[in-house]
Amino acid sequence: MKISIERGELLKAVGQAQSVVERRNTIPILANVLIEAEGNTVSFRATDLDIEVVDKCAGMVERAGATTVSAVTLHEIVRKLPDGAMVILTDDGASGRLTVEAGRSNFSLATLPKEDFPVMTTSEYDSNFAVPAPVLRRLFDKSKFAISTEETRYYLNGVYMHIADGEDGKALRCVATDGHRLARIDAPLPDYALEMPGVIVPRKTVGELRKLLEDDDMMIAVSVSEAKVRFATPDITLTSKVIDGTFPDYTRVIPVGNTRKLEVDAAEFAKAVDRVATVSSERSRAVKLTLEEDKLILSVNAPDSGAAEDELAVAYNDERLEIGFNAKYLLEIASQVDRENAVFMFNSSGDPTLMREGNDTSAVYVVMPMRV
Amino acid sequence: MKISIERGELLKAVGQAQSVVERRNTIPILANVLIEAEGNTVSFRATDLDIEVVDKCAGMVERAGATTVSAVTLHEIVRKLPDGAMVILTDDGASGRLTVEAGRSNFSLATLPKEDFPVMTTSEYDSNFAVPAPVLRRLFDKSKFAISTEETRYYLNGVYMHIADGEDGKALRCVATDGHRLARIDAPLPDYALEMPGVIVPRKTVGELRKLLEDDDMMIAVSVSEAKVRFATPDITLTSKVIDGTFPDYTRVIPVGNTRKLEVDAAEFAKAVDRVATVSSERSRAVKLTLEEDKLILSVNAPDSGAAEDELAVAYNDERLEIGFNAKYLLEIASQVDRENAVFMFNSSGDPTLMREGNDTSAVYVVMPMRV
Repeated sequence: MKISIERGELLKAVGQAQSVVERRNTIPILANVLIEAEGNTVSFRATDLDIEVVDKCAGMVERAGATTVSAVTLHEIVRKLPDGAMVILTDDGASGRLTVEAGRSNFSLATLPKEDFPVMTTSEYDSNFAVPAPVLRRLFDKSKFAISTEETRYYLNGVYMHIADGEDGKALRCVATDGHRLARIDAPLPDYALEMPGVIVPRKTVGELRKLLEDDDMMIAVSVSEAKVRFATPDITLTSKVIDGTFPDYTRVIPVGNTRKLEVDAAEFAKAVDRVATVSSERSRAVKLTLEEDKLILSVNAPDSGAAEDELAVAYNDERLEIGFNAKYLLEIASQVDRENAVFMFNSSGDPTLMREGNDTSAVYVVMPMRV
Repeated sequence: MKISIERGELLKAVGQAQSVVERRNTIPILANVLIEAEGNTVSFRATDLDIEVVDKCAGMVERAGATTVSAVTLHEIVRKLPDGAMVILTDDGASGRLTVEAGRSNFSLATLPKEDFPVMTTSEYDSNFAVPAPVLRRLFDKSKFAISTEETRYYLNGVYMHIADGEDGKALRCVATDGHRLARIDAPLPDYALEMPGVIVPRKTVGELRKLLEDDDMMIAVSVSEAKVRFATPDITLTSKVIDGTFPDYTRVIPVGNTRKLEVDAAEFAKAVDRVATVSSERSRAVKLTLEEDKLILSVNAPDSGAAEDELAVAYNDERLEIGFNAKYLLEIASQVDRENAVFMFNSSGDPTLMREGNDTSAVYVVMPMRV
């Protein structure tokens, strides 16, 4: 194998691949990236056995071939090479070394046989459709904070992507919850997506997917089967196993009868929550909201360290209500609001509370109260 | 006590104080800041029993008094208050609470009696002089990287500040070493400093001192005794115990007979060292320098992971030399060079190597070689 690639192109391709590689591996070849050169394309493939990413870039292939080297080392080297350099990768197939040359810099890296690299088996997908990058970005960005980190509840360790009945007919929906809070985000149903099976996309896959979604004009090809999901741009293909479990029936958790409506500037609200939470100890970060006519009082009482109170002008026209929440959960849902006021719908101090952005029901959040 | 202080002033004063406070304290009051209000001045005092900082700021003192509250909590609260707010601190002396008010925000913090706060005893100083902030900054910035972290060699856990014979007569000198490398930085002798006893300024004090030295036009009042050192600006006084030990005779470590001179662009050199070190395992980051006529070859050979080589055009006119160094040490001393080329003076592959910036001998570094 002998190829020349411009340093910037190479950095981008290896960067995406190496981020999938786990830092600690018991299987040595999982630390490596599989480099395959043919025609005028070089592909970089990395896997952790659950996720596989393949990143293609244009290169001058003088001699076709394939090999594997440490993804992290190759990435570090390319990162440290000067901008604009032409990088030459050479593997004679016999020495067990890949040579990396750029200008007066010269590296020789240990390789492992390409035959040992675990390439993910290709599968049949039940459903193939396309979604604009910003739509997919919104679906996952606004839901991922609610993913559970409890390993015993493995079926909550991801975002449940499925087809559901939204406000305006069928929708592509992402839901995540950890039992304390829940996010439900809808997007218009893409063409050909109706038959998609619901899948739980693992947390790590959500993180890797995010890197494919920066370009606002990009269409992302999505393929879904019962066992796998694939997201692809023209250059990058991300394939992931999905979580083998049943996502709980979240619809029963979303309150429908909450009538007490509070409307508040989300940024001001978040700042006030953050301020009053300062005095509480890390463990019990409970904030009490006291709702009165057009007035919201936020308070924290931590017997050991002190107390705090803040007041906000809000829109509220129902009877007086006191309700407690975990400060971190309030901050996280408030930070999802980007355009309008946050609208909270309360029932009683013991019932789940609903939050949305203005009158938009395509993103709905539920948070469980705390006794204060 | 009742005082009003502008939020920005308060943030600065509390910020400097809280950074001295250790995050884990067995003695509760050491987590607190002592607030003292009198006349039109409010002072904030914090200590870890080795270092004490007192920061004064202007405030409207309606009722004089003093109390202590958690430094970290007060700092967090003030940081989260809106810019430009007027902050009112009230302590009625009976409730055991300090009230912090700003607009509609209201905090009540647990206090501890001011009498329990360990105020550092004032001392007689043997020597009092003034140094411009940039001079002190250079002395400590260029030496602190070489401070030892080995607790058993406690006498190397700081910067040795003393009066010494420099190139142009007496100098104010800072030296730090960990046995593998050494930094020796000189500044012109300030008036009245000649009688100063040599002191070892602890690592943490060096860090705290750094925050006093941002203003280029500031003169820093320095006071030194056998046991303590004090640095003061009009607003901030930093007092610290010095390390009770004898700094070793470093002069014997600095080679005087090295004649083989290498001159190299420091930034290019650092980049090349960083690049070739990429392939080596973290533990043995040895880089070999091979010097030939006007040519420097940097190489690393890590049998497990690979090899790397880089070449730089340099000025060198002596016989061929191969010498190995710890990559981290080379990077650190190369990053001290800010204006000119780095000049290395070698003897043999087993002898300490000297580095300086151009022909300037007011900052000299020594680094021990490694067998490669």
